[in-house]
Amino acid sequence: MRKVFVFTKKPKIISVSSVVGKKEKDGPLGSLFDFSYADTKASQKTWEKAESEFVKKAFEIALSKASLKNDDVDTVFCGDLINQCTVSTYGLIDRQIPYFGIYGACSTFAEGLILSGNAVESGFSEISASATSSHFCTAERQYRFPIEYGCQRTPTSQNTVTAAGAVIISSKHESNIYLNEALCGIPIQKGITDINNMGAAMAPAAADTIIRYFKLSGNNPRNFDIIATGDLGEEGHSILLEILSREGVEIGSNFTDCGKLIYDIKKQDMHAGGSGCGCSAAVTNAYFYKLLIENKIKDLLIIGTGALLSPLSSLQGMETPGIAHLIRITRET
Amino acid sequence: MRKVFVFTKKPKIISVSSVVGKKEKDGPLGSLFDFSYADTKASQKTWEKAESEFVKKAFEIALSKASLKNDDVDTVFCGDLINQCTVSTYGLIDRQIPYFGIYGACSTFAEGLILSGNAVESGFSEISASATSSHFCTAERQYRFPIEYGCQRTPTSQNTVTAAGAVIISSKHESNIYLNEALCGIPIQKGITDINNMGAAMAPAAADTIIRYFKLSGNNPRNFDIIATGDLGEEGHSILLEILSREGVEIGSNFTDCGKLIYDIKKQDMHAGGSGCGCSAAVTNAYFYKLLIENKIKDLLIIGTGALLSPLSSLQGMETPGIAHLIRITRET
Repeated sequence: MRKVFVFTKKPKIISVSSVVGKKEKDGPLGSLFDFSYADTKASQKTWEKAESEFVKKAFEIALSKASLKNDDVDTVFCGDLINQCTVSTYGLIDRQIPYFGIYGACSTFAEGLILSGNAVESGFSEISASATSSHFCTAERQYRFPIEYGCQRTPTSQNTVTAAGAVIISSKHESNIYLNEALCGIPIQKGITDINNMGAAMAPAAADTIIRYFKLSGNNPRNFDIIATGDLGEEGHSILLEILSREGVEIGSNFTDCGKLIYDIKKQDMHAGGSGCGCSAAVTNAYFYKLLIENKIKDLLIIGTGALLSPLSSLQGMETPGIAHLIRITRET
Repeated sequence: MRKVFVFTKKPKIISVSSVVGKKEKDGPLGSLFDFSYADTKASQKTWEKAESEFVKKAFEIALSKASLKNDDVDTVFCGDLINQCTVSTYGLIDRQIPYFGIYGACSTFAEGLILSGNAVESGFSEISASATSSHFCTAERQYRFPIEYGCQRTPTSQNTVTAAGAVIISSKHESNIYLNEALCGIPIQKGITDINNMGAAMAPAAADTIIRYFKLSGNNPRNFDIIATGDLGEEGHSILLEILSREGVEIGSNFTDCGKLIYDIKKQDMHAGGSGCGCSAAVTNAYFYKLLIENKIKDLLIIGTGALLSPLSSLQGMETPGIAHLIRITRET
């Protein structure tokens, strides 16, 4: 029988970082991010090279905060939204760190945390890192239209967040914040083919993971200070609330979504909110982690959600599968 | 200091499978594969859907050989060459198994083995699987030209293998074949920008992993019955031999390459040989694994190699980074 995995060795989070673009800096969490580029092209010639700069910067900051050198890191788990995840590869290639490429669309942040935690748990690595990114301009032109077209966006569309985040996990450093539990997501599709409604595609997978987690772990939503989905946005989050309520899960008032938190949605005209693997990375690393550090929260559930489509699969009429990986991060009392 | 990881719990390989297309069936290993499609479109409307059928079939065979049901498998690590790895997702979506997407280009087979082995090692999963695939027609039109163009191929080009393979690893079943050691690859680029010469891009990464492995493990190439790179092909393998010789590594006569084994290169007019994550999967699962089962070999090193480019990164003039993950598979004496 499948179980919620409990990290018995309590892999410690020893450093996190967040690097964002201008719109994210202008949002309600703006003052919390480690670094922001006013020029979202980061002085590069292409948007993809710019996104690699975000990854590079995020990794540099995380490493520096922990006073680590490249050689100290045994493995890094990386991924992004761009074809063949090249943004991550080029972002970290100068560092010469053993590298596992991962792909989970916007759930990549949670997947990276789980897998680097698992590498530390098994002893595969003493220190393992993860890094994820997304960029409005690279993602929009790949999945929908080049931004130069100035296409009008639909109300359910989410704004791909321009951001990168890195997390460093260790078995040999001290920290009172650790990976506690994890649950791997199951891909689920429920007939969504609208590429402008990722929230609807991801909500059923998020519901499945959340319901499985509470059933298998015996925990209760009230045990947690914050329960946050990765980036369903307003549309997806409201669908998820409906599903959970129908299934009898009282998720409570601590339930939120990174895609709803990163922008002032109305004021910044962000339609359904934020998305992209940089979204959950930036919000978790800058906001939730700070609350853990300051002892304002003690127990956090992140449910990283992703839409596993490609532009080609959409053109071929395929449904958009969703996936949601869960990770529990706890502050030692 | 970074180390070679030794799987202390000896995760057991309890089932493997290989599913190939017509050209692979016509090759020297043709009789060893579990299943072959004479129609490489597998009665589907698109090449991508066909490749998903290959994944589905490979997984079905591996599961059936081990007399397992979907629910018995705790996690599956999957990846392919196609944008956003949708081939893998759609190939397995009906099975409803917890799913981690991975991307390592042609090294994905080795990456999947390492990560599913690590999931079993840590206790994250009791039974974990991996599945990888590639397809000549999906890869060629994505990376180079649609096959309908009938473009002439260069001498250094490799033929993307049409194949899928699955491996099931368990901590609770008996088997005398197990994962022994693993070493995560480091992305390395050495100035290659020719998208028709993947072998040259991957060879330096393979050399780095092989040299690190023998240095860190204290083992000697003579300790192994077979040392096989994933799919460097003739061009890449000869470059690798040159690098190793220059670095003073006597790799010996048991050193081969999956991309050289899968086709009768001259007779089948395969230029530099085979490539694609289906190549190392099919050759390892059908050929090497059979030799282990029959006690004809006892110790096997697989170095899965991948070229971490994308069509866009090539168009933007970026170099092609290579990566090589190493896994040691041993037969218990």
